[in-house]
Amino acid sequence: MSNFTIGIVGLGLMGASMAYALRGFREARLLGADTDELVCRRAEFAGAVHKATQDAGEVMAQADLLLFCVYAHHIPPLLSAHAAKLKPGALLGDICGVKTHLYQAMEPLLPGHVDYVGVHPMAGKERDGFDNADPLLYRNSGFIITPLPRSSTESISAMKEMAGYIGATRVSVVSPEEHDRIIAYTSDLMHIASAGLCMDFHPGMNVAFTAGAFRDCTRVADINAAAWTELLLDNRANTVERLDRYLASLQKVREALCQADTYALNCLLRQAGENKREMLQR
Amino acid sequence: MSNFTIGIVGLGLMGASMAYALRGFREARLLGADTDELVCRRAEFAGAVHKATQDAGEVMAQADLLLFCVYAHHIPPLLSAHAAKLKPGALLGDICGVKTHLYQAMEPLLPGHVDYVGVHPMAGKERDGFDNADPLLYRNSGFIITPLPRSSTESISAMKEMAGYIGATRVSVVSPEEHDRIIAYTSDLMHIASAGLCMDFHPGMNVAFTAGAFRDCTRVADINAAAWTELLLDNRANTVERLDRYLASLQKVREALCQADTYALNCLLRQAGENKREMLQR
Repeated sequence: MSNFTIGIVGLGLMGASMAYALRGFREARLLGADTDELVCRRAEFAGAVHKATQDAGEVMAQADLLLFCVYAHHIPPLLSAHAAKLKPGALLGDICGVKTHLYQAMEPLLPGHVDYVGVHPMAGKERDGFDNADPLLYRNSGFIITPLPRSSTESISAMKEMAGYIGATRVSVVSPEEHDRIIAYTSDLMHIASAGLCMDFHPGMNVAFTAGAFRDCTRVADINAAAWTELLLDNRANTVERLDRYLASLQKVREALCQADTYALNCLLRQAGENKREMLQR
Repeated sequence: MSNFTIGIVGLGLMGASMAYALRGFREARLLGADTDELVCRRAEFAGAVHKATQDAGEVMAQADLLLFCVYAHHIPPLLSAHAAKLKPGALLGDICGVKTHLYQAMEPLLPGHVDYVGVHPMAGKERDGFDNADPLLYRNSGFIITPLPRSSTESISAMKEMAGYIGATRVSVVSPEEHDRIIAYTSDLMHIASAGLCMDFHPGMNVAFTAGAFRDCTRVADINAAAWTELLLDNRANTVERLDRYLASLQKVREALCQADTYALNCLLRQAGENKREMLQR
C-alpha cells in the first residue's frame, strides 16, 4: 500500500461501488465514512474499504483524493465543518447528478489549499444502498467531468485516470452549467417519462399484456423517490424546459392521432427513429 | 409429417418467427405465403416453412390452421378474394396488434364453414423483416387470445396449445374490445412515450451522457414508422385516452417542479413505484 489515501464519504450504492471499483488505484489506502455504523462495519468486512468510520471529518482530514458520494445538500455542511482540516494539495470531488446549484453553495466554502473537480458517473440501479453495491457498476459506462474555473489541468487528468480505472469508456468534460442542461434531457426527462407512465395504468392489465416496450419504458419508474425529488428540484429550470419540449412532442402525436393524419404521424415517428440513430453516433 | 397443414400468410419478422417456432407442431406441413418472391425462396432455403409461394390463396386453400401475419388492412381483401376456397373446419387467426377495427371489417367476410380466433403474441423487435426472424421470439412472452362471439371452445383451446408450443408463458383470453383498451396502455402508449423522447433532443449531448435510463426509455423509439402509424391509428380512440392520462400525469409532475413542491413530487414518484410493483404482480 502506498501513502496515497482515497476517502469516500457516503457508502451507499454509488459510494460503495466506487470504493470497490477503486481498489488498487494508485495502491491507495481506502477510507470510508457513513452515518450508519452497521454500514461501516459491513463495508470493512466486505473489503469495500480498508477502514470505515462514522466521522466524515476524520476521512476528510486524511484523504489525498476525496469523493463525496452523498446527497448534494449534505456537502456544504461537511465543508463548513471540516474544510480547515483538509490536506494541502488534496483533490476533492463529488458524484452528484446536478452541479450548478451545489457549486454555487459550495465554492465559497472551498479553502485555497485544495483543488476540486466534480464528476458524474453515468451509472446506477433501481435499488440503492450498500447491499446493492457492485464493483462493476461503472464498467462500460459514461463519465462526465465538470471542472470549476479554478480546477487545474492535473486535477482534471487525475479524474480522467480514475474514470478509466473504474471502467468508464465514454468520458466527456463540460462546464457544470452545460452538464445540467444536457442531463436534464438524457437523465431527468427519462426518469420523469418512465415514472409518469406508471402514475396511472389500465386496471384490466396483467403481465400477459406486457412485452419488451413495457418492461424497458417503465424500468426506472420504481426509483428512489427521495433522491430523485432532490435531483429534479435541484435542476428544475432545465428539467421543466425539457419536459415542456417533451409535452410539445406528445401533443403533436396527439394532434396527428385525433385528426387521423397518417402522413403527420408517420413523419413524427420517422423523425424519432432518425434522431435516435443520430444520438447513438455522437 | 401428418396431414395437418399450417399456413402462414406473411413471412416478415412475426410470421417467419412464428413459422420457425411452429416447426413440429402437430407434425404439420408448414406452408408460407409472401408477396416477395425472394423472401419465399429464402424461407424455404432456411427451413422456416416446407414450401412458400406468392399466392396467398393457395395457402389459404390448404391450411387447417391459418395465421395472417400481415398488416391488418391486407386481411379483409384476402378473405374477400379467397374465402370460398377455405377448407371446411379450418381454424383462422391473425396476430395483429389491434383487433376491434379489423374484426368489424372482417367478420362479415368469414364463411360459416371455418372458425376464427385472433391472437396477439406480445413479442417483437426494433427491426422487422424475414432477416430478423427468430425461432425463440415468442419464448417466455405474453400471449393474448381474443375470440369472436362465434369462436368455439375447441378453437380457443387450439390457440392456447399453440401459445404453449411456441413458448409463451403468460396467456390471457379477453374480448377484442378489452384487448384494444389494455394494449393502448401496455403497448401503444409505451411506444408513443419512447418515440416522443426522441422527437427532440439536447444538441450538446453525446453518449457519455447516456446511461441505462436513456437506453431503456428510448429503446423502442426507432420503430417501424409505417407499421406503428397503422397500429396507432387503428386504435386511436383508446390510444388518445391513454395519452391524455399520461399527459395529465406529466402535467402534475410539471406543476410540482414549477412550484418546487417537494412533498407533491415525492408523492407522485412514490405512487409510480407502488403502481409499478403492483403491475408486476398481476
